[in-house]
Amino acid sequence: MSNPVLTPAAASGPIGVFDSGMGGLTVLRALRRQLPNADFLYLGDTARLPYGTKSPATVQSYALQTASLLVERGVCALVIACNTASVFALDALRMRFPELPIFGVIEPGADAVCEVSRSGRIGVLATESTIASNAYQRAILARRAQAKVFARPAPVLVALAEATWTNGDVPESVVRAYLDGWLGKDGPDSLLLGCTHFPALIEAIRKVADGRLKIVDSAETTARVVAQALGEVAGSRAAGYLATDSAERFSRLAPVFLGECVEVVEMVDL
Amino acid sequence: MSNPVLTPAAASGPIGVFDSGMGGLTVLRALRRQLPNADFLYLGDTARLPYGTKSPATVQSYALQTASLLVERGVCALVIACNTASVFALDALRMRFPELPIFGVIEPGADAVCEVSRSGRIGVLATESTIASNAYQRAILARRAQAKVFARPAPVLVALAEATWTNGDVPESVVRAYLDGWLGKDGPDSLLLGCTHFPALIEAIRKVADGRLKIVDSAETTARVVAQALGEVAGSRAAGYLATDSAERFSRLAPVFLGECVEVVEMVDL
Repeated sequence: MSNPVLTPAAASGPIGVFDSGMGGLTVLRALRRQLPNADFLYLGDTARLPYGTKSPATVQSYALQTASLLVERGVCALVIACNTASVFALDALRMRFPELPIFGVIEPGADAVCEVSRSGRIGVLATESTIASNAYQRAILARRAQAKVFARPAPVLVALAEATWTNGDVPESVVRAYLDGWLGKDGPDSLLLGCTHFPALIEAIRKVADGRLKIVDSAETTARVVAQALGEVAGSRAAGYLATDSAERFSRLAPVFLGECVEVVEMVDL
Repeated sequence: MSNPVLTPAAASGPIGVFDSGMGGLTVLRALRRQLPNADFLYLGDTARLPYGTKSPATVQSYALQTASLLVERGVCALVIACNTASVFALDALRMRFPELPIFGVIEPGADAVCEVSRSGRIGVLATESTIASNAYQRAILARRAQAKVFARPAPVLVALAEATWTNGDVPESVVRAYLDGWLGKDGPDSLLLGCTHFPALIEAIRKVADGRLKIVDSAETTARVVAQALGEVAGSRAAGYLATDSAERFSRLAPVFLGECVEVVEMVDL
């Protein structure tokens, strides 16, 4: 299950990053900070988003198609910037592309939250499918057998992020409902954002948590793991964007997740 | 653009109803009330939901595949129980299946809201794609040239309905935000629910509107149009359910939209 070491020969192309849609741009943003010289090729499978409410078999089949397109484009490594696809497709992708370093977001997120939690009481918000898979619960308990995991699906946060409705009373009331019962002394001391859409709501989450939870963003922690594994990656600091639907919508929403504008989005068919 | 009259020979199979997911079950529910003896075959394209954030070309291509499967199963008529697919695929479906009576939800919804509005000031909540298409705005103005249409995308209502989070403070605060500025004397006097998910939130919507808006549910009005066009339809009062993903999730969510349980869901591949 461990990743092959990146050989210089393999490191010629861009780093491929994919998600069901735009949420994975939070991972790309963190990756560009960690690997400022590298080239990236991002693919959002916007025609079929979201993955988070779909079955394991469907998500796996979509992820294989998405990854195959990036491999055809010559990527030197692959980052699954989607929690749901990391859960259901990481092993299948590593089997299909054994030479390629492939990174998911679950293990780095679990590592980071286990590190910051003092009490071992750990909260996880993610999509329906990610929570139902128990992947984070298992990954956390594998690192800290005495941990108590509080896990809750938070699908409405995805819709809020996609609607760029990230601040104000309504997002805060949704966040407050999802953190219900978690902010008292019997609740978790740390919170893992287990969906790449959620960092778009970080301000509302911080405001509601009001210092009572250490917030771990799996986008940030994954980027650090990728940077550590790949070492110095040379490139021309370029980023390309592919989507399976709605290039206009992609451009419009990209700043919410990426923090900068994306002007050219190439449409691809899977 | 007019629909062929249903001939007795064609009326042998069930009435086909399709949507991107579960929302169309609100239309099926209304249809079963209007046509209590008919048989129905419902198909939810759950592997690719939602349609409401996707491009016209993608929605049209998905709708053609979905309808073709129902036609292969011998349906006698077709109801597009999805606003987005009605906007982008109704004409294409009527061209592809010229013998089949095919009904969308836009025209019946526009008819009904124009009938109940006294002031001609009409509010429409729908998905991003439906609002961006201007289909309701055009259909309303074609009926009442002096109407003033207030149209707003309300995508977070879809997520709330799918999360079965339909009552209480949070749904009400989301509804209140979407009706912001519409509840004063300069606002609309009527509100068209232009997405088949929204009837699941009817109580929260009624509570926030507090009698200031006449609410028109396009599911109800579409069912009346279908019943009127088809006349008495004989059958065994049976309903079959097909989905392209997650039969378990379909069964679990069905009561929110249909008002009753669905135990058997056949998985199909498009």
